[in-house]
Amino acid sequence: MWNMKQLAYGALARRANQIKDELRQGVRKPYKEVIDVFQGDLHGAGMKPLTFVRQVLAACVYPPLINSNNLPLDVRQRAQKELGRCVGGSVGSYSAAAGIPEIVHSISEFIKRRDGGIPSHPENIYISPGSQWSISNILNVLVNREASPRTGVLIPVPCYNITVLSITQLGAVTVPYYLSEEQAWALQVEELQRALESAKGVCSPVALYVINPGNPAGYVQSQKSVQEVIRFAWEKRLFLLVDELYQDCVYGENCEFVSYKRTLSEMGPPFSGTVELASFHSVSKGFLGECGLRAGYVELVNLDPAVMKHIHTIFSKDSCAPVLGQIALDLMTDPPKPGDPSYPLYKQVGPENCTLVINSLPGFSCPPLEGGLFAFPRLNLTPKAVQKAKVTAEMQEDPDTFYCTRLLEEGGVFTSPGWEYGQKEGTYHIRFCIAAPQDIMEELLRRLSSFHMTFMKDFS
Amino acid sequence: MWNMKQLAYGALARRANQIKDELRQGVRKPYKEVIDVFQGDLHGAGMKPLTFVRQVLAACVYPPLINSNNLPLDVRQRAQKELGRCVGGSVGSYSAAAGIPEIVHSISEFIKRRDGGIPSHPENIYISPGSQWSISNILNVLVNREASPRTGVLIPVPCYNITVLSITQLGAVTVPYYLSEEQAWALQVEELQRALESAKGVCSPVALYVINPGNPAGYVQSQKSVQEVIRFAWEKRLFLLVDELYQDCVYGENCEFVSYKRTLSEMGPPFSGTVELASFHSVSKGFLGECGLRAGYVELVNLDPAVMKHIHTIFSKDSCAPVLGQIALDLMTDPPKPGDPSYPLYKQVGPENCTLVINSLPGFSCPPLEGGLFAFPRLNLTPKAVQKAKVTAEMQEDPDTFYCTRLLEEGGVFTSPGWEYGQKEGTYHIRFCIAAPQDIMEELLRRLSSFHMTFMKDFS
Repeated sequence: MWNMKQLAYGALARRANQIKDELRQGVRKPYKEVIDVFQGDLHGAGMKPLTFVRQVLAACVYPPLINSNNLPLDVRQRAQKELGRCVGGSVGSYSAAAGIPEIVHSISEFIKRRDGGIPSHPENIYISPGSQWSISNILNVLVNREASPRTGVLIPVPCYNITVLSITQLGAVTVPYYLSEEQAWALQVEELQRALESAKGVCSPVALYVINPGNPAGYVQSQKSVQEVIRFAWEKRLFLLVDELYQDCVYGENCEFVSYKRTLSEMGPPFSGTVELASFHSVSKGFLGECGLRAGYVELVNLDPAVMKHIHTIFSKDSCAPVLGQIALDLMTDPPKPGDPSYPLYKQVGPENCTLVINSLPGFSCPPLEGGLFAFPRLNLTPKAVQKAKVTAEMQEDPDTFYCTRLLEEGGVFTSPGWEYGQKEGTYHIRFCIAAPQDIMEELLRRLSSFHMTFMKDFS
Repeated sequence: MWNMKQLAYGALARRANQIKDELRQGVRKPYKEVIDVFQGDLHGAGMKPLTFVRQVLAACVYPPLINSNNLPLDVRQRAQKELGRCVGGSVGSYSAAAGIPEIVHSISEFIKRRDGGIPSHPENIYISPGSQWSISNILNVLVNREASPRTGVLIPVPCYNITVLSITQLGAVTVPYYLSEEQAWALQVEELQRALESAKGVCSPVALYVINPGNPAGYVQSQKSVQEVIRFAWEKRLFLLVDELYQDCVYGENCEFVSYKRTLSEMGPPFSGTVELASFHSVSKGFLGECGLRAGYVELVNLDPAVMKHIHTIFSKDSCAPVLGQIALDLMTDPPKPGDPSYPLYKQVGPENCTLVINSLPGFSCPPLEGGLFAFPRLNLTPKAVQKAKVTAEMQEDPDTFYCTRLLEEGGVFTSPGWEYGQKEGTYHIRFCIAAPQDIMEELLRRLSSFHMTFMKDFS
């Protein structure tokens, strides 16, 4: 089901870079620039950073700017406040291992507001250099390397592939549960049950990993669905690892993000006091899109104090998260208020058009996008295309890699093939980021349509 | 020998924070501020960041500054150049896993200049969020978790304790070799031999970890000593893990930093083509002191291509190092030249005075400091002091923690006890950072002297 060769990405990325070089050297292609929507990298895809965020960070980096009249007053005040929290007044010093205490506190206030007043405790929050880093480290605590049978972790299909890699690298076994594509990628408890049964004799599952809102598929779980998952985790004594990176990217009609933490708390006893939960968030996604700053956080719920101590040791090992990333987290969780000079203006790119265009293409189908940064449409390849892919030596076995490669070569659009995220046998998908600026998205959809029509004709 | 409880640090750090709070609230103490020389944190200890570095970073964070006449021309040009290397022209986008290619290249040029022209290949260099991160990840590759007997790693005593933690967390065994304090912390091959023998029946050593210049002890290895270590590694087929973080902090008379890479290359065959080597460096130490930016690099020599591929996968897992940290690495490895408007002025604090004062105190002894950021003087505690420490419930077993705690309480100086780094049974040390500004260093030495005299009187 999974195919952990990083080669396809490597090969595609290398080729994308080559093509970019060729274009710079004046080689003629049917396009002038490669549209790079492979990663969930908003700035890489052309989105502009928020001015307020960048002004505050610049003033923190170079404090004489705090006295400059060229920056808005609230920016300068905020920078002063942030520097006051840094050891020695410099972003160049280490912070506490869990993060700058005042910023950890401001994250807990953000969570409390988000969850309708349910308390969040700063001592349960750890800031890290990106969310993958904390996912790996929490997994490190959960996985017993010497256990026989091995430790198992239930993971969705499709799933963000780096998390899969983290699990297997620790010597644990992934136990896939399939999201129901036919029902807009719904997470069904019967399927969790089936997956758990399938692990018998293979491994001993200790954790259930969920992604909400989805990546690569753009679903948003209803609160009812979240409740079902929590009840399942409680019954089976599974630790809940919850990727909630896209909590600020929800745009589907009648969709709302409701956190696992909030739902767990609202469910009351016996669930609220027993189900162990780790929820991940970061500055890379959401309205900041600051991937390059490398900062995220995890909130831990219901963990045993002895385990918390162990987690503290692990987080201490790499000193601390980048201080500028920590400050960005503070700006994300405590942004300017209406009336402040820098009250941020931010418009999410409308994804509705995207689903419409994709579904208008023969052979493509995509449930309405509800949240997250990606489209993960299904690609009904003709037998001829599948056959052709299989005989193309380098690309054998991966017809969607074949499609992505040709889309890159001929259409100048850099996407990634579905197999990298897991998909049902015999189905094919592509993933691309939909958070590019409007004009780039329109150009992308034009190129995709035109390439796709030719491709389908060639292999009909 | 080691005592991996993180508690002493935890307890001392907590107490240091409490005392700082008390001082802020107006509680009267024999001092007005705590001098925090516990970590190798230059900015935390009051050093000012380099203006050029901060100006370039600020302009990269907030690009309108590039057009501002308030910044020197070379700063603006440099910022423009750095942004041109970022995907989408933003420090908020991901870079390649190994780092921004042009910066990796500039690191390789830096290494080549440092090593008198010996080539350094960009494909062997990986940028990471701090050096500990890459040490852990290289160890991850070297340690076979399922091996029986377990994998062993030779480590110096004293040793930076976080590295020890990384080794033991991976399930490997540390094999201590003692540096000779009597000979200014010299590394003796006979001692390596003894350590290796001692591992028989316990573990299977695969790697030898060395720290040069030293941390916590402030030695600098001669090239002859480096040659001996390389020859030993070659004979015993040990992978060399070389912490060279303090390569820019050498100030001892007749001392010179010569890298392991250079020495290995100059030794020629059979050594030069076979000994596997990983050398670590970072922006946290040296003349930048930018701990909070979290960026370092590792250069790998003579590794098998299959292993390099595995390392690439591991480094890909956490996306990339913080982009601003990467830019700081570029500024460190390719700084302004004489004649540039921003040619940096940087004065290393003279450590000579420090050794003099320490050695003038009864019961203290410290070989001349040659390099690195720390003093690690030996403390000859009276039997009475040792006894007192042992009966003080919280601090039992650690007389040097007892000393550090009282130094913090009574003298307002936050240092760390020798046991955290390993020391010969029955010897005691303290470690403190000597890279604070001159006036702070002078105050520190005054407080240390005065406290020490009282302490020795109390326990004579």
